[in-house]
Amino acid sequence: MATLFEMSPRCQELHKKLTDFVQNDCLPAEEVFESQVGKGDQRWKVIPPIMEELKAKAKSLGLWNLFLHKGYPEGPGLTNLEYAHLCEITGRVPRVAPEAINCSAPDTGNMEVFAKYGTPEQKQKYLVPLMNGQIRSAFAMTEYAVSSSDATNIETSIERVGDHYIINGHKWWISGAGDPRCKVYLVMGKSDPRNKDKYRQQSIVIVPADTPGIDVIRPMQVFGYDDAPEGHCEIKFTNVKVPVSNIILGEGRGFEVIQGRLGPGRIHHCMRAIGMAERTLELMIERVTDPSRRTFGKILARHGTVAADVARMRIEINAARLMVLQAADKIDKTDAKGAMRDIAMAKVLVPNMLQRVLDLAMQAHGAAGLSQDFPLARFYAGARTLRIADGPDEVHIQQLARQELLRGSDIRAKTAAMKIRRQEILAKGSKL
Amino acid sequence: MATLFEMSPRCQELHKKLTDFVQNDCLPAEEVFESQVGKGDQRWKVIPPIMEELKAKAKSLGLWNLFLHKGYPEGPGLTNLEYAHLCEITGRVPRVAPEAINCSAPDTGNMEVFAKYGTPEQKQKYLVPLMNGQIRSAFAMTEYAVSSSDATNIETSIERVGDHYIINGHKWWISGAGDPRCKVYLVMGKSDPRNKDKYRQQSIVIVPADTPGIDVIRPMQVFGYDDAPEGHCEIKFTNVKVPVSNIILGEGRGFEVIQGRLGPGRIHHCMRAIGMAERTLELMIERVTDPSRRTFGKILARHGTVAADVARMRIEINAARLMVLQAADKIDKTDAKGAMRDIAMAKVLVPNMLQRVLDLAMQAHGAAGLSQDFPLARFYAGARTLRIADGPDEVHIQQLARQELLRGSDIRAKTAAMKIRRQEILAKGSKL
Amino acid sequence: MATLFEMSPRCQELHKKLTDFVQNDCLPAEEVFESQVGKGDQRWKVIPPIMEELKAKAKSLGLWNLFLHKGYPEGPGLTNLEYAHLCEITGRVPRVAPEAINCSAPDTGNMEVFAKYGTPEQKQKYLVPLMNGQIRSAFAMTEYAVSSSDATNIETSIERVGDHYIINGHKWWISGAGDPRCKVYLVMGKSDPRNKDKYRQQSIVIVPADTPGIDVIRPMQVFGYDDAPEGHCEIKFTNVKVPVSNIILGEGRGFEVIQGRLGPGRIHHCMRAIGMAERTLELMIERVTDPSRRTFGKILARHGTVAADVARMRIEINAARLMVLQAADKIDKTDAKGAMRDIAMAKVLVPNMLQRVLDLAMQAHGAAGLSQDFPLARFYAGARTLRIADGPDEVHIQQLARQELLRGSDIRAKTAAMKIRRQEILAKGSKL
Amino acid sequence: MATLFEMSPRCQELHKKLTDFVQNDCLPAEEVFESQVGKGDQRWKVIPPIMEELKAKAKSLGLWNLFLHKGYPEGPGLTNLEYAHLCEITGRVPRVAPEAINCSAPDTGNMEVFAKYGTPEQKQKYLVPLMNGQIRSAFAMTEYAVSSSDATNIETSIERVGDHYIINGHKWWISGAGDPRCKVYLVMGKSDPRNKDKYRQQSIVIVPADTPGIDVIRPMQVFGYDDAPEGHCEIKFTNVKVPVSNIILGEGRGFEVIQGRLGPGRIHHCMRAIGMAERTLELMIERVTDPSRRTFGKILARHGTVAADVARMRIEINAARLMVLQAADKIDKTDAKGAMRDIAMAKVLVPNMLQRVLDLAMQAHGAAGLSQDFPLARFYAGARTLRIADGPDEVHIQQLARQELLRGSDIRAKTAAMKIRRQEILAKGSKL
Repeated sequence: MATLFEMSPRCQELHKKLTDFVQNDCLPAEEVFESQVGKGDQRWKVIPPIMEELKAKAKSLGLWNLFLHKGYPEGPGLTNLEYAHLCEITGRVPRVAPEAINCSAPDTGNMEVFAKYGTPEQKQKYLVPLMNGQIRSAFAMTEYAVSSSDATNIETSIERVGDHYIINGHKWWISGAGDPRCKVYLVMGKSDPRNKDKYRQQSIVIVPADTPGIDVIRPMQVFGYDDAPEGHCEIKFTNVKVPVSNIILGEGRGFEVIQGRLGPGRIHHCMRAIGMAERTLELMIERVTDPSRRTFGKILARHGTVAADVARMRIEINAARLMVLQAADKIDKTDAKGAMRDIAMAKVLVPNMLQRVLDLAMQAHGAAGLSQDFPLARFYAGARTLRIADGPDEVHIQQLARQELLRGSDIRAKTAAMKIRRQEILAKGSKL
Repeated sequence: MATLFEMSPRCQELHKKLTDFVQNDCLPAEEVFESQVGKGDQRWKVIPPIMEELKAKAKSLGLWNLFLHKGYPEGPGLTNLEYAHLCEITGRVPRVAPEAINCSAPDTGNMEVFAKYGTPEQKQKYLVPLMNGQIRSAFAMTEYAVSSSDATNIETSIERVGDHYIINGHKWWISGAGDPRCKVYLVMGKSDPRNKDKYRQQSIVIVPADTPGIDVIRPMQVFGYDDAPEGHCEIKFTNVKVPVSNIILGEGRGFEVIQGRLGPGRIHHCMRAIGMAERTLELMIERVTDPSRRTFGKILARHGTVAADVARMRIEINAARLMVLQAADKIDKTDAKGAMRDIAMAKVLVPNMLQRVLDLAMQAHGAAGLSQDFPLARFYAGARTLRIADGPDEVHIQQLARQELLRGSDIRAKTAAMKIRRQEILAKGSKL
Repeated sequence: MATLFEMSPRCQELHKKLTDFVQNDCLPAEEVFESQVGKGDQRWKVIPPIMEELKAKAKSLGLWNLFLHKGYPEGPGLTNLEYAHLCEITGRVPRVAPEAINCSAPDTGNMEVFAKYGTPEQKQKYLVPLMNGQIRSAFAMTEYAVSSSDATNIETSIERVGDHYIINGHKWWISGAGDPRCKVYLVMGKSDPRNKDKYRQQSIVIVPADTPGIDVIRPMQVFGYDDAPEGHCEIKFTNVKVPVSNIILGEGRGFEVIQGRLGPGRIHHCMRAIGMAERTLELMIERVTDPSRRTFGKILARHGTVAADVARMRIEINAARLMVLQAADKIDKTDAKGAMRDIAMAKVLVPNMLQRVLDLAMQAHGAAGLSQDFPLARFYAGARTLRIADGPDEVHIQQLARQELLRGSDIRAKTAAMKIRRQEILAKGSKL
Repeated sequence: MATLFEMSPRCQELHKKLTDFVQNDCLPAEEVFESQVGKGDQRWKVIPPIMEELKAKAKSLGLWNLFLHKGYPEGPGLTNLEYAHLCEITGRVPRVAPEAINCSAPDTGNMEVFAKYGTPEQKQKYLVPLMNGQIRSAFAMTEYAVSSSDATNIETSIERVGDHYIINGHKWWISGAGDPRCKVYLVMGKSDPRNKDKYRQQSIVIVPADTPGIDVIRPMQVFGYDDAPEGHCEIKFTNVKVPVSNIILGEGRGFEVIQGRLGPGRIHHCMRAIGMAERTLELMIERVTDPSRRTFGKILARHGTVAADVARMRIEINAARLMVLQAADKIDKTDAKGAMRDIAMAKVLVPNMLQRVLDLAMQAHGAAGLSQDFPLARFYAGARTLRIADGPDEVHIQQLARQELLRGSDIRAKTAAMKIRRQEILAKGSKL
């Protein structure tokens, strides 16, 4: 009987190759990448050259588009469970490795949308260059003025006028939109705001990034980080006009698209978060066993609370990983919808775990741990974001609760039957 | 590719049969059992008749000695992973179901000791009746005067005099020793107190419960429960004499025996704890969806914090279960020693999870949840004990920490190599 | 400027006297008391003789009825803040000391009700013997069938028929009702179930314990403890008849009475909880510095996590104490209603603190900490109950939240003004 | 009897004036200040003009140097407790208000050092302009290469050569050193590295910022913030030469100086942290009661978990404030050394509270809460730093533990006496 940790020979080979690539190429490139990010007015214009080098190397190694799981002829045909193991590794160097193998958000989700729902023309125009790593993309959903954690609140209008859609809206936190290579947005908005079924009001349309009427106002910061060159941008859409052929799947099917898109996407974030946590633990161990760092006569690891923190990190990480693998496997065995509960659980558990693990590691690093000399604070910003992005904890918890609570009447029936049986046992003088 | 949740057809059949037995026989019998426990001076003399009926039924159903995993000819040949799924179910009715199928502590551990290390005579005399459910047994390790969480502290003396051992010591928390059916103790003590290797000082000997010199002083209570008829007893051994043939495995091999004994045993407790947690969640759901219980105009489940608690319970339980299954699988794939780390992680995670889950459920039940009308408070006493029994959290955490921290020098070497590589990249003008 | 910790000379003297009495008389009497509690069918009939001895001694020392604060001519005239310091001390031996000085629940609350709302006849008949420690009393509010955390759910009917009230209802968790000295109940129920103002439906009537129609069904257990001889009983009232003169304050004024009663009462529990926590910390320190208890070569206190636990206990206890003192002071400076918010905060914070503190101490004590050899597990049962009794955490949290959230519009107005001001500053070229 | 919340009439007046100033001037100036911070190569050269305007206004209002408590003729003569109430208010706008009233770290601590230990010449040269707000200062203690949480590790050498000290060392996290107005450093280092008493090895010397040999290498970032214009800088001291008259207090007295300096300083940070927490709660309330933000049909505050978070924030803030006030009062009643325990407790409790409070508020704000549009993420960076600065949690916890554990022998003696007394009671037939 195999388990969550067993991989096909092919996947094992990829795993080894990717591990080497991340350790020997991406990790050393991390600081190089940061140093190559544009300064001043070059900030949103320059792509660190090291990134294109890494991409070329990854492609030559066959480490490319691994996320496109079985069922997509375009991809390498891995299961979600197999990809989970690979994706975790890239999470160790999250600013570099995922993009280096063309498996970074939001492109992966967008590629899945094109692969799953795109017309041949749409695929040719957008999926092909995305899969080649020639362009990047963004997904424009979150809005400035409304609580977007409830996606029915999205208010951008997508109005059909003749053969075109006219888009007006105010989005923000549009990840990747700051990147000069970002050539296309998928924009969510209301094409049918008066539909009684509020889950049928929204549509998603393809909007080339150079369409007139798009105003990228500013990059948002997360704990002081602007995440250039990708960025998370505030964008206004004013009378932005695209042909009706740019619709994805059809009018009113926006919710259908984001469900399909977000399921695996949520779990990709979680997979990488495990990798971030593992790297965090390694940094912690390296720090606290450093023979040159002693307080009160002992290296840090000799202080009982520090050692206990290390153990707790290990326990939390392993539990979280199992939840992620289990969710990935459930997607494989059913589909994203069938695995919704497992995905939601991982989506709540993992970022909270990562936040705690990072907090402990930062404490053990002292002020250095909060600074640019270690990746911990930046990881923390990511972990904290992840508790909000793709549905905040609260939404997933609410959904999980609802599903559990549905069991109420079944349980009550079972209890009623049990009580009758108990009476029987008592009545019969304890004969079963 | 199979996963942690897949069982052989045979195991699936047992799973179904056991689920029915626990739901339809053990659960209704739970209150009956409690009501049949002796009162006053009958407390430690009576065995609730319902228990023997349940045992007979379980045996007839083939639900018997399921814990004896592959490798023991005496058992049904399940894997530890398979048994984990079955054992969980019995945890739903922990005072009744495990014993009903002859899979309750401390007998399981003791049977494993006899099966693994016993001589043919020892097996005949003790293993056979234990496996038949005719007698019960105890394991006498914890001592009154020393911190027994460090087992090298155990001070009971086992002195060889001619062909006998003379045992003197003061034990307590000897589970099962209050039971009138308990016929044999395995007693740990120092046969070689001056051995320089303190892990070779201890031995384990078989002591029939009716040997002169044994004084069962009193039952210990956990919170207010005495867990009659089994009990957890304080016992004095004064010049207790047994033949040298009663040694297990050989002098000085006590640590070896308890390592072999405790590995699977620890995980059995965890498996049952998952079952207790699942039942707790069911009780919670039943309570908070009860249409007749409303506060401030709403059933409890409509209060957001209550619903969130339900979701968090679900997440915590599932994560903990995966840890247990993973540890069981690791025992199967290696052995108890190879799975030590996984067992330790489960041993820490699971009881803490159960404690939290119970606390939330008790709160939702109000005062009733603390009372004899629900099993929650008693479960809580068990969960709280489990954070101490078979090694307190602290010991497992310390061991886990030590193991993680061993990675320090490897990590430092990898980092050093990475930094050299980074310098190369920078020096070569960023060519990888 | 004085602070929360300064007491009048008179209070200082009482404090010293009480500290000595609790340490030198009550603490040594604790185990004696437990051993004198009735066994078997004497359980609810016997009062441990040591208790009456302690009461006599306390009275002779002037340590009596200290709880009756300024404003009650019957009492010693301490402030609530002063009493807080004294009451804390009695919490160190909670089963013995509070009753020994006639300051134990539910009598204190009931005496306050009689003192505040009683007619001269009611006072003569009940308050005088209660204040003399000759009888005890109970407060019958919580009901079996409804969620009593919302007191408007209380369903017992108090029907006026001529010059009498006829009471029918099913109560439980009636503390003190098991005590043979309990001579009177204050019973809450609906005298006007159709009143549109649901806070005017309830009344409270005096019911002598020997009135026909009262059936004390059973004592409830809390984690296995029945708290004999007081007990927490399930009681049925069937056509119980009392004269209309037994009403407290008037029909429909039940909520008024319980508000007045519960305010200080809640805080008394919190005061004692601080004392329990301090004793817990002392037990912890005693245990972990015990030179004879060593694990892995060190006394427990040398293990870093244990030492950190000690420090955290100290921090938590001190913060909680300040909250209690502050609430008591607020009652003095305003009244129970004016201090409602402060009382609610203490009521949430303190039992949760005590629960954590106890959990840490139990862990450091090993299995012994859960047993009858230490008071920790019993304290824990009390702490856990306190999170439910007199309003569960959730109710207080909800009330606190409501009050905070009322500030929303004020804050919004302030923010609006601030933004205008900001614009001015910017417009005027940054001149303030 | 007065309490922690009562202030002298003079302090009340200052409190009102300061509250108005912070609300009406500092709060509107906050965004203005941020927008005036230098960009690009002006980053460490420009002082936002609004700051000098605020300082002038504060001075004219008599809101100036409030921190210099009773005992310093230079100050307004407030108690530490009174200052605590005032300091809290400035914490609401932490980047602006403290400096605006010349009460910001590290200047306050440095001014205290000069006022307490300075010679008349040192006072004239540094204390006067610091108190006038004409210059700023830094305190150079933390080092790059050693765990500075144990200050005995500090390795910078301060070697006496003739009438001068020659300073060599590598410091970082030197707050304020980036500010162009920073004219003087207090530098800690070893003047007597071979002294057997390691608490006598260190000295503190005054180093003018323009002394040759000082190299300000880079500003450190905290999360992504560089806190320009003050900054937290990495600095190398190479053969930096100052006259021996620049010593503070005398050679080998460095620990004495930092103890005197840090006591009140630690508590100032805590006072401001309470103000930050109160503002955070206001932002939370404003957000969740915003009628335009609805999820799933309700404003956020109607979701039970959100309301509960608000209540918990209130409880945590109030408890923490009491700890701070209590510590400040203890300093007044004894001195910084006498209040060491209380200061340590506040220093642990408060930043942890602030971190939790901010985390909850960020979650309720969604992604916006992590961005530059709200002060929450920046506050969080500050809160997280505060758990490390001026001694990490661990050091304070260790000290607290040590002090508590000292009680072990006393407690054991008391217990022994109690047990004898218990025996007496039992022996005498329960007569007290």
